[in-house]
Amino acid sequence: MQRYFISEDLWNLEDKEVLILDEDFHHVVNVMRKKSGSHFICCHPSEQSYLVEVAEINTDEQTVKCRIIEQLDENKELPVHVTLAQGLPKGDKLDLIVQKATELGIREFVPLKMDRSIVKWDDKKSKKKLQRLKKIAKEASEQSHRQSVPTITNLETVQSLLNRETFDKILIASEYEAKGENHATESFSELLAGIEANDRILVMIGPEGGISEAELQDSILKQAVPIRLGPRILRTETAPMYVLSILSFYLEEWR
Amino acid sequence: MQRYFISEDLWNLEDKEVLILDEDFHHVVNVMRKKSGSHFICCHPSEQSYLVEVAEINTDEQTVKCRIIEQLDENKELPVHVTLAQGLPKGDKLDLIVQKATELGIREFVPLKMDRSIVKWDDKKSKKKLQRLKKIAKEASEQSHRQSVPTITNLETVQSLLNRETFDKILIASEYEAKGENHATESFSELLAGIEANDRILVMIGPEGGISEAELQDSILKQAVPIRLGPRILRTETAPMYVLSILSFYLEEWR
Repeated sequence: MQRYFISEDLWNLEDKEVLILDEDFHHVVNVMRKKSGSHFICCHPSEQSYLVEVAEINTDEQTVKCRIIEQLDENKELPVHVTLAQGLPKGDKLDLIVQKATELGIREFVPLKMDRSIVKWDDKKSKKKLQRLKKIAKEASEQSHRQSVPTITNLETVQSLLNRETFDKILIASEYEAKGENHATESFSELLAGIEANDRILVMIGPEGGISEAELQDSILKQAVPIRLGPRILRTETAPMYVLSILSFYLEEWR
Repeated sequence: MQRYFISEDLWNLEDKEVLILDEDFHHVVNVMRKKSGSHFICCHPSEQSYLVEVAEINTDEQTVKCRIIEQLDENKELPVHVTLAQGLPKGDKLDLIVQKATELGIREFVPLKMDRSIVKWDDKKSKKKLQRLKKIAKEASEQSHRQSVPTITNLETVQSLLNRETFDKILIASEYEAKGENHATESFSELLAGIEANDRILVMIGPEGGISEAELQDSILKQAVPIRLGPRILRTETAPMYVLSILSFYLEEWR
């Protein structure tokens, strides 16, 4: 069933109403051609989802007023809060990465300025790219039946990201490990065993050229754990899919 | 280091020689601009890799004769033989799937004619597509430092694939499971626990519309196990990446 992610100010939970505007209005009325009495799902920013029914379509004001029928008992979100930070890759790889990482459950995506990124973002490019990534995250959240849309943050540096100091665990996908130059003090499976519900986990992935030795050492100083993702060398866009699949499997299918 | 996958007839292991022809000749001489004395890696179809040195470049005959310097002790291949069979998806998604599945270690890729595939392949299209997928598999094998290139087979039907009867385990990624309509008699983790080295594992993934109820039932009759890949609905191209990441992690990083 179609779902929409509706910002907090448009909900009136007391009166069991939710208002749909703007792009979502267009989608409900013109794309899905919903009528009075039609049903779909609306997600509140608290990650609670509701089955709603169209009560009134106002084409002059471009609003759809919906009546909440039922609070849904969905449980589609990863039990941990994963931030994926990805060194800027070439081409349009970020589109693929954000789409797949959203399907796999991230809560935040950080485009990362890294030593070996060849691509640079100026303000204009940055604005355009971020807009596009937000759209991709929203669509992927709908398609994968999530209850929330990942936040896409502005371009950050490794230092500013590490200085946030809000992460319980930091994982670095390091191709040094696949090549057998071992920096790991802990294995991926040991690290998984230490994860608790609601932990804030940062997954940091280098660009095509990999993470630099300086970035690796800075991260390790902040308790980051370099992990190996199998013995084969994965492309920069494959590494996050591997890590996120393992987190999902371990936390949602294994225990 | 650059690597080439060289067919069996071009090796003379007794005399420690290997011959490079055709596209690989072009790549060695014109792209990589290798000279006498240059080093790279050649992989034998037995999955044994060798460090070689260019002994003689013959531009008239378009051959590069190499001397084997050393047998390499690489161990990059998944310890099981995975066949990925994918229902024909829309657009050029197979390109992405074959590239990623190669990085993640498959040995065989089967394009699958399934009930809900919208795309049809006629002979001409099939030939072109297969050629392209073979090229992608070869390049991804080089890039990920594998010792073998996955086989790309011709278009098959679910029935003919199941009738091969050469698989030790059959996994079906089933979105029925994510939707809570349970067919699973065994969980993914129970199934993993039963995998042994060198097992032949078939991973079958439906197209965008999913696997049909009839295909699911036919597969279950052949001992296939429907598995859930987390609670979110994954796109058809994300599902193989999830399954293959778990197989790699469980068999290469966990035990």
